[in-house]
Amino acid sequence: MHYHSQHSPFGAFASFTIGLPGSRGGLGQSLSGPAQQDVYVGYRLSTERGGGKEPWNLLPFFEKNAESAAAAFTVEFVKETEPREVTRVLAADDLERKLGWASDEWSHDSFGYRIYSPFSRTEEPTQLTRDAARIAFAPIVVSEISYDNREGNDPVELIFGIGNQEDNFRPLEDSDPNLVGFAFGSRMGYAVNPEDVATRLQGLDVLGEDEVRADHRGLHLLGQQSAVIFRVEPGERKSFPVALGFYRDGIATTGIASSYYYTKLFDNLEDVLTHGLQHSEDYIALAKVRDEELESAAHLSVSQKWIIAQATHSYLGSSQLLWDEKEEKVLWSVNEGEYRMLNTFDLTVDHLFFELDWHPWAVKNTLDLFVDRYSFTDELKVPEGVSSEGGISFTHDMGVCDHFTQKGHSSYECMHLTGCFSHMTMEQLLNWICTAATYFESTQDRAWLKERADIFEQCLLSLQRRDHPNPEERSGLLKFDSGRCGPDGAEITTYDSLDVSLGQARNNLYIAIKTFGAWSLLKKIFGPSGLDKPVLAEESRKAMDLCAGTVCEKFEPEVGMFPAVFEDGNTSRILPAVEGLVFPLYLGLADALKVEYPELFEKLAEHMAHTLKPGVCLDPVTGAWKISSTSNNTWYSKISIAQHVVRKLFAGAEFDEAAFAAADEAHARLQQLAPLGQFAMVDQVHSETGVALGSRYYPRIVTSCLWLRES
Amino acid sequence: MHYHSQHSPFGAFASFTIGLPGSRGGLGQSLSGPAQQDVYVGYRLSTERGGGKEPWNLLPFFEKNAESAAAAFTVEFVKETEPREVTRVLAADDLERKLGWASDEWSHDSFGYRIYSPFSRTEEPTQLTRDAARIAFAPIVVSEISYDNREGNDPVELIFGIGNQEDNFRPLEDSDPNLVGFAFGSRMGYAVNPEDVATRLQGLDVLGEDEVRADHRGLHLLGQQSAVIFRVEPGERKSFPVALGFYRDGIATTGIASSYYYTKLFDNLEDVLTHGLQHSEDYIALAKVRDEELESAAHLSVSQKWIIAQATHSYLGSSQLLWDEKEEKVLWSVNEGEYRMLNTFDLTVDHLFFELDWHPWAVKNTLDLFVDRYSFTDELKVPEGVSSEGGISFTHDMGVCDHFTQKGHSSYECMHLTGCFSHMTMEQLLNWICTAATYFESTQDRAWLKERADIFEQCLLSLQRRDHPNPEERSGLLKFDSGRCGPDGAEITTYDSLDVSLGQARNNLYIAIKTFGAWSLLKKIFGPSGLDKPVLAEESRKAMDLCAGTVCEKFEPEVGMFPAVFEDGNTSRILPAVEGLVFPLYLGLADALKVEYPELFEKLAEHMAHTLKPGVCLDPVTGAWKISSTSNNTWYSKISIAQHVVRKLFAGAEFDEAAFAAADEAHARLQQLAPLGQFAMVDQVHSETGVALGSRYYPRIVTSCLWLRES
Repeated sequence: MHYHSQHSPFGAFASFTIGLPGSRGGLGQSLSGPAQQDVYVGYRLSTERGGGKEPWNLLPFFEKNAESAAAAFTVEFVKETEPREVTRVLAADDLERKLGWASDEWSHDSFGYRIYSPFSRTEEPTQLTRDAARIAFAPIVVSEISYDNREGNDPVELIFGIGNQEDNFRPLEDSDPNLVGFAFGSRMGYAVNPEDVATRLQGLDVLGEDEVRADHRGLHLLGQQSAVIFRVEPGERKSFPVALGFYRDGIATTGIASSYYYTKLFDNLEDVLTHGLQHSEDYIALAKVRDEELESAAHLSVSQKWIIAQATHSYLGSSQLLWDEKEEKVLWSVNEGEYRMLNTFDLTVDHLFFELDWHPWAVKNTLDLFVDRYSFTDELKVPEGVSSEGGISFTHDMGVCDHFTQKGHSSYECMHLTGCFSHMTMEQLLNWICTAATYFESTQDRAWLKERADIFEQCLLSLQRRDHPNPEERSGLLKFDSGRCGPDGAEITTYDSLDVSLGQARNNLYIAIKTFGAWSLLKKIFGPSGLDKPVLAEESRKAMDLCAGTVCEKFEPEVGMFPAVFEDGNTSRILPAVEGLVFPLYLGLADALKVEYPELFEKLAEHMAHTLKPGVCLDPVTGAWKISSTSNNTWYSKISIAQHVVRKLFAGAEFDEAAFAAADEAHARLQQLAPLGQFAMVDQVHSETGVALGSRYYPRIVTSCLWLRES
Repeated sequence: MHYHSQHSPFGAFASFTIGLPGSRGGLGQSLSGPAQQDVYVGYRLSTERGGGKEPWNLLPFFEKNAESAAAAFTVEFVKETEPREVTRVLAADDLERKLGWASDEWSHDSFGYRIYSPFSRTEEPTQLTRDAARIAFAPIVVSEISYDNREGNDPVELIFGIGNQEDNFRPLEDSDPNLVGFAFGSRMGYAVNPEDVATRLQGLDVLGEDEVRADHRGLHLLGQQSAVIFRVEPGERKSFPVALGFYRDGIATTGIASSYYYTKLFDNLEDVLTHGLQHSEDYIALAKVRDEELESAAHLSVSQKWIIAQATHSYLGSSQLLWDEKEEKVLWSVNEGEYRMLNTFDLTVDHLFFELDWHPWAVKNTLDLFVDRYSFTDELKVPEGVSSEGGISFTHDMGVCDHFTQKGHSSYECMHLTGCFSHMTMEQLLNWICTAATYFESTQDRAWLKERADIFEQCLLSLQRRDHPNPEERSGLLKFDSGRCGPDGAEITTYDSLDVSLGQARNNLYIAIKTFGAWSLLKKIFGPSGLDKPVLAEESRKAMDLCAGTVCEKFEPEVGMFPAVFEDGNTSRILPAVEGLVFPLYLGLADALKVEYPELFEKLAEHMAHTLKPGVCLDPVTGAWKISSTSNNTWYSKISIAQHVVRKLFAGAEFDEAAFAAADEAHARLQQLAPLGQFAMVDQVHSETGVALGSRYYPRIVTSCLWLRES
């Protein structure tokens, strides 16, 4: 119960975030966390017979102001008013909340409030009809407030309102008589159907005694609070749609000048809100289809479904569908949660599975931009006498905070470092191979494969050189860091916040198996069903053999596990040992691999069985999975993959099924408590204490959608 | 020393606010107070001989972060670094600060930083050449950092930087190789000449150990801090311009869709910054002319000059020059400080004097918009049997927070009230008359007078009816409130936060004398040098006689003062008794009035002499002027007017000149301490404690420019 959720349109980098009892949220655009508005949603009996009105019963999504807003104006006029009870906060314990894949619902007796954030399979945006595109890409979230007064004796009033802390509202009726609602400038607001509204309020204190301060039409435009009121007569049961809309006009990004794609489909906020109200039933119906799909996944526990639902909500909140104004084409970006980096490749490779299901064109779009603008050819840091020629790779990200970085450079990567903020050249090379091959194999987009054949070949070469320029000395492992690190730097992995067990790229078990996975994909890509280049397919097979052989040698039979890093006597144990297998697994190639590389798979199974024990990679207190035995960091996105691989690929191994189920529950429970819940979805979590260690308000956990494939 | 100042371009509703030691500020657009950025300005010795660099000596315009910004990324990599001294905060007491009319300067030994916000006389914007308009309306503030190293033995480095708390920077060199500097999106930023720059930094901690985190070109784009570094060799004395620019593109206001006028003159932020650097010498020269003008006003004390300078800075920060996209014409607005109401008429009438000196076209623009969109005809609240026909008047304001309200309505005024937020119909009628007549008489814009002749006539009629519909029953005082107040409401005055002494409009001394002043202006307007309507001029004279006679009857000879309100035995004493005389005084008509109405002027002189005593309208503790004997509220804008009127009009009366000088010093001193200084300029101040009672970050005190006319 104690968590925010992001309720977001597709591709608007915007959220209506509410849910954590006792805290603010509301409408936010391009933010690194929840907005800070008070949200008023609730009901009251209107007991005219008794000559008055009951206090409002409100969902707990606001904070009490310490000081009257009127005090800033009225110094000496302030009256000591009799304090009267104008609001009752509905206690979290008295509410029912149900988060669906595309919905979120609170109910209290006969009262209900539901927010829908439906998503659907889309084709490349420019290929859609205008009507279909408007449905798919409207920057709108439809919600619904309802009351069942069939048994009641008194009329009931329902309220939806927002108290903003920064800017004033404008009444939408000023610009469009067919809308009742309020907006912040031209950027965001909410609207309802005029025929539904009993009254609407704007003022300094719309819930309290200041309702009396109003102009000729019952509003006080100075007020930073606004609300709409609905009425349900005795004997009636009613639902009223409340549309929540966004509109960021003009050029939205620098570096690459782009605008939101929806600005090509909608004229302004009023257009968006009108559309939302007109199509509220469509959106609700679509959301219910998604809800039902997740709900009906009988193989998943309640906790697992909740994680998938919450993760999908946060993914949508970070999604950003743009239009490159110069190139005149679609520009897709997913922002990296609180960090707001654009298309961080480490995340793209994890969002891949969800995106292939729902908007595979987005995967292609990102892969192309990585090739066209964010690829480079480096030199390697090698001993004297060895060629330093490197190969192609890709940047960690494409920029930050709506600024696309220069061609060939990320916002994240620095020189001269051996830890966080160093280069991830090998990691991103693997990410392009894994993402691109998985994209092709699952879509069979042959035109694209042909177009990018050269890049696949360059990737193969780059991967080989990073092992060793001299074929005779290759072992299947990364040996040389990119020259981009500088003479005193070393490459790191996506696990940049972790200790050495996952931090360094060379001699790293995670990278090694991911390399094995990448080679298996290249073998397929260069095979007869792909680019049909037998020599390169054979090179790929050889690299797989080398890699598997080398890794197997690192196994420590006495403990039945691999070390995380193949040097310095490291004895950390890591779950991402199997992460690189998720791609062949996803493509249905894993069973064949198992047959071809029985020793590797047996040892990995044994490794996972031994690491998934309390005190190794299960937190001894909570039972949560930890990516490393020497760290308390969970990384929900990554354990989602590990869970999926273990369950699908090593089902025969001796795992403690009860511990698995307990872990799912622990994972969900931690995210449902305020320390994490205040940030909607957190990736990096302390496995024992449940505090956020980083990656708040984060999209990446949508990898958990892989679990839907386990039925 | 302990105060922020707003350093603002003309008409951009934007400020670079710094100055209060130990607190944040920086670049802000459309804000109700200072931005919250750390600003780094300072110097250090670069003692290469000693093998290191001294810590930075920085002006105290930043706060220390509690937590390392890197911690959000680097959970387990965080090293315990040796704490080393990387910055020394220059103590306020060790700095010299000098605020000029169009400049602000800090110096410490050989180091200096100066910010220029020049303003100049302008014609109607569309009448200017493009080049002149670009100079006048560029959304730019030029500053200058300098060091005199002629006596030094070591090179010195100078730093200008900003640490932003919300968004990341982008390096301007990405979009324009002729600029070095950083921007927040497309909206604001700073730039310097590339040839001046020794190096530039962007990172998570540009002042500290994290300088080492940098990419191939020495920047870390993830970092929310940025800086440029200059170098001054031994034997050199150098100044480097730093341009601070703003650019809000697209539609900036709703209600009336308008954009910033400068968007017609500049393509983008880069264009603005380039212009600022190219013309930095011009801007600096212009600022120095303004500084010299104020400095040379020998009749003003240091405190008075400081108030004028600081007030002008805040006025410019609230000014907003727009372009009405539909009507295709200039739209002028001044925002009401922290409240951000648009063109609050109570402020327009006070800004009048400054605007007539520098941009009289703005006065006309606002008067026209008040007629065309924000005028109305009301009915009056009268006893039965009396005609309730009212007349023309004007709204309190034109909207709030960049939203223009509906035709004929303000954002402020509500029905059914008798205090704050009630209607100010009489007040605004007087404001139009006083502003319009003063505009014509001082500009002799005869075309406009003819165009608006009808409005002047309507105003005369409206003023008469509010006294009494029946000419026989007129007394020169307001008797009937506007029907807009509702049956249970009553009109108030601009002194809305005060007690009854100035709160209610009817039977109010302040309104009565302002009415007298308005009639004197109408008499002139309808006289032979104006519209030449002898009948109306005579009506005006009659009203003056009535008003003067009635007011004189209210004088209490036993105490030598007027009561503030002519009812209920009120014995408050108020300084705005003479406020309404400022208009005829400004126009050189006051001496003739004195001759015509000797009794009134003698009694007012006696009133002012008696009220300006400790315990009446002088605060007994600080000596500050108070607008009312029964309130502790000063209202700097209004005491500025009262001071001017008293000194010019009642110079012969028995005032305590020492107390006057002490008051000026007290007024300046209170604004220079943190309780007020944190808000740059505050209008409503507790006269004893010096705390802000309202109207923070406020433009209205620019009325103090009237003092320049006292020489």
